[in-house]
Amino acid sequence: MPDPKLAKDTIAAIATPPGDGGVGIVRISGPNSRIIASAVFRPAASTFADFKPYRLHYGHVLDAQGRELDDVLAAFMPGPNSYTGEDVVEINCHGGRAVLAAVLEEILDRGARLAERGEFTYRAFMHGRIDLSQAEAVAEMIHAPTKAAMHLAQVKLSGVLGETIQRLRQRLEGLRAQLVVAVDFPEDELECLPPEEMVAVCSSVRGEIEGLLAAVDRTRAWREGALVVLAGRVNAGKSSLMNALLGRNRAIVTDQPGTTRDYLEESINLGGLNIRLADTAGIRQTEDAVEAAGLEMGRELMDRADLVLLLADASEPFSEDVLTTAAGLDPARTLVVLNKADLPGFAEAHGAPLADMGMEAVTVSAKTGNGVDRLCERIRDRVLGGAGQPDPDEIAPNARQAKVLAEAGEELLLLEEDAMADIPYDLLSVRLETACDSLANITGEITSNEILNTIFDGFCIGK
Amino acid sequence: MPDPKLAKDTIAAIATPPGDGGVGIVRISGPNSRIIASAVFRPAASTFADFKPYRLHYGHVLDAQGRELDDVLAAFMPGPNSYTGEDVVEINCHGGRAVLAAVLEEILDRGARLAERGEFTYRAFMHGRIDLSQAEAVAEMIHAPTKAAMHLAQVKLSGVLGETIQRLRQRLEGLRAQLVVAVDFPEDELECLPPEEMVAVCSSVRGEIEGLLAAVDRTRAWREGALVVLAGRVNAGKSSLMNALLGRNRAIVTDQPGTTRDYLEESINLGGLNIRLADTAGIRQTEDAVEAAGLEMGRELMDRADLVLLLADASEPFSEDVLTTAAGLDPARTLVVLNKADLPGFAEAHGAPLADMGMEAVTVSAKTGNGVDRLCERIRDRVLGGAGQPDPDEIAPNARQAKVLAEAGEELLLLEEDAMADIPYDLLSVRLETACDSLANITGEITSNEILNTIFDGFCIGK
Repeated sequence: MPDPKLAKDTIAAIATPPGDGGVGIVRISGPNSRIIASAVFRPAASTFADFKPYRLHYGHVLDAQGRELDDVLAAFMPGPNSYTGEDVVEINCHGGRAVLAAVLEEILDRGARLAERGEFTYRAFMHGRIDLSQAEAVAEMIHAPTKAAMHLAQVKLSGVLGETIQRLRQRLEGLRAQLVVAVDFPEDELECLPPEEMVAVCSSVRGEIEGLLAAVDRTRAWREGALVVLAGRVNAGKSSLMNALLGRNRAIVTDQPGTTRDYLEESINLGGLNIRLADTAGIRQTEDAVEAAGLEMGRELMDRADLVLLLADASEPFSEDVLTTAAGLDPARTLVVLNKADLPGFAEAHGAPLADMGMEAVTVSAKTGNGVDRLCERIRDRVLGGAGQPDPDEIAPNARQAKVLAEAGEELLLLEEDAMADIPYDLLSVRLETACDSLANITGEITSNEILNTIFDGFCIGK
Repeated sequence: MPDPKLAKDTIAAIATPPGDGGVGIVRISGPNSRIIASAVFRPAASTFADFKPYRLHYGHVLDAQGRELDDVLAAFMPGPNSYTGEDVVEINCHGGRAVLAAVLEEILDRGARLAERGEFTYRAFMHGRIDLSQAEAVAEMIHAPTKAAMHLAQVKLSGVLGETIQRLRQRLEGLRAQLVVAVDFPEDELECLPPEEMVAVCSSVRGEIEGLLAAVDRTRAWREGALVVLAGRVNAGKSSLMNALLGRNRAIVTDQPGTTRDYLEESINLGGLNIRLADTAGIRQTEDAVEAAGLEMGRELMDRADLVLLLADASEPFSEDVLTTAAGLDPARTLVVLNKADLPGFAEAHGAPLADMGMEAVTVSAKTGNGVDRLCERIRDRVLGGAGQPDPDEIAPNARQAKVLAEAGEELLLLEEDAMADIPYDLLSVRLETACDSLANITGEITSNEILNTIFDGFCIGK
């Protein structure tokens, strides 16, 4: 994406989700925002002279022929105190696809350029309105599947992660300054900066980094949700179980239009935890798979799963193929569901061979619903793996941030070892610099264009 | 829906389309809007005293524990000059599902009620901000599949249909007043209001009604789009043709999440005309259908289609089943597509039996793309049936409006006949009243609650 300080162009996009709704917003940002908005907007009030900052003006968007396209509310937010740090105009239109496309088209015709993915937030970052960790938090906020995930994003959006990293980096920079002085006076080196002191600072910073990394694992399921795959024979009752689970746990997250998969996926909300429940049944029934083991399987899907629910009809002894499938699964990531507890032939004992493999089993009747609440509880506990509800103020870095934090931590550990091994101070300063740069990657003070592009490409257009 | 004048409650909903986007809006309307908004909103500016009308205030939405849920822009629009005619607050949040759900939840916790479908617009109608034809135009605007459809909705949204109807109704009401006077003086009846004068007024009003009804048919394809069904044998090249058509005509309308069909449907935009292209292939392949004629058919779908594209491999003589299928189709709603023009065996003559049935044929190569532009042109012309681009100021009533307009027109025609047949004037006034009431149904001055509920149920929540 072009640097807004150099390009000085004006961008525009639809800022609301695609689809039909009451209201949709077209957003414009850049030096010509107000001029472009003035060209397409006819105010209703005869007293209107020009856009007043942060005021909603009622009027119409007109096309080049002067025809009314829509009646709208338009607001001008002058830079540098706007979202992007530039002059911004937002136009609230009727929330239809054709309406928003037509209004956007007029704005592009008057000289704005269609914004790239995440370009508004990119501009906010480039103009110093937010640091990179906050920019990433914007996307995490938008895509948060649950309230818990949203809270974790909001903490980062507020800038706490960035501030923490700044503080850690300042301590290391302080150490670096001392190191430079020490290197200049080789004979007094150890007096200027005793290795113990250096190790103490590094170790303390490293401790904080490890604390942040621990939060990454502890909050993963809360931030990203978990993938739970339903496996089992055709007649084991997978659809009934899917419906029983969906019926009890309405999720606010549903499929996005345009995403296609070769399996069914539904989201359920288990006490604030987003579970993506996947089933290969009904859509992909390749003959091979059916022939191979009499089971409909999505092997690759099961490998990716946080938990596999192996559903079995326990109203009769298990057939060989169920046991074969089970043997291919990791007991630590498997929960056996003994279904059809409502039938006379049902016996928990039928599950004994799976218990012998070390697999936990839960008894349910998908038909009557008995045991389903208990199953939900076990799914939740297994997926969380002992991690409870996250602390509301928890700082939970994302995967990218965790990677550079880990790099910084490793570098500090090596530096501590080097210091105690009497490695010359001028060599140590390289490690210190590497650790500092890794941390600067989180706030975006030192981040390559390539990484920036990767980050902002993950955004939707209009953000 | 409860009458807002009696209920006096405050409603709230997410006003933007569901999904992930840069911005999402939660809207509140009713007497307690400002109080509820104040309870959840913490302004960033220390100078904030209270919401100023039509001003965007930056701040945070807090939950009951005082935790920040999101950073937002909030605006207060006092009644009666707001969208609903009541006090309205709109809160611009980050456009994520969890964020919007959490903010809405807080607002509901503070005493607002979740709005029903279309309830904001219903309130606008009940408070006299818009008439019923404008309320319906809001929904038409939002769901408009193309710019042409949007223009047709915008004309009605501006109130022109309502004004036209009011004018026609006033003329009939004038006639009705004259009729009352005439009935009071039976001996001077014919002098007070000669039948010719009555017929002239009725006939003139009826002429305008018929003009409106003609616009309904002429604009149907523009307003509603058209359903075009792909039929043909498995190997006739349906997927290739579908892709060729999709590749050239990117549509802004895509499938809504949550809609399931037993056939593939894609929207294409042919010169501003929205075509829903349906294909039963790939998803529903019942054995019966395959056995019956060697064709994958969606009989019911073909019956509903505005046009059936009967795709045939014309690189070889047609098999019996193609001819059998063709025999079951209406030539007026069928366009034969002779595919595989790139193959050496291709011959337009293979289509002769279909031409004998009176069916138009177009030659294409779905593979190379030859002939596809011409096909698009023919699809467009056939679907439009001679109706050109609609006049930008065309008043195009919707189906409900057309129905009551037709009723009014019929009643006027009967009245004209009665008048010329010397039917007593006091009997004529009943017909005149019926015609007036039908017209009043369009603006909503006389409309049953049942009809109102049906209309507003067609809206999305949040509008």
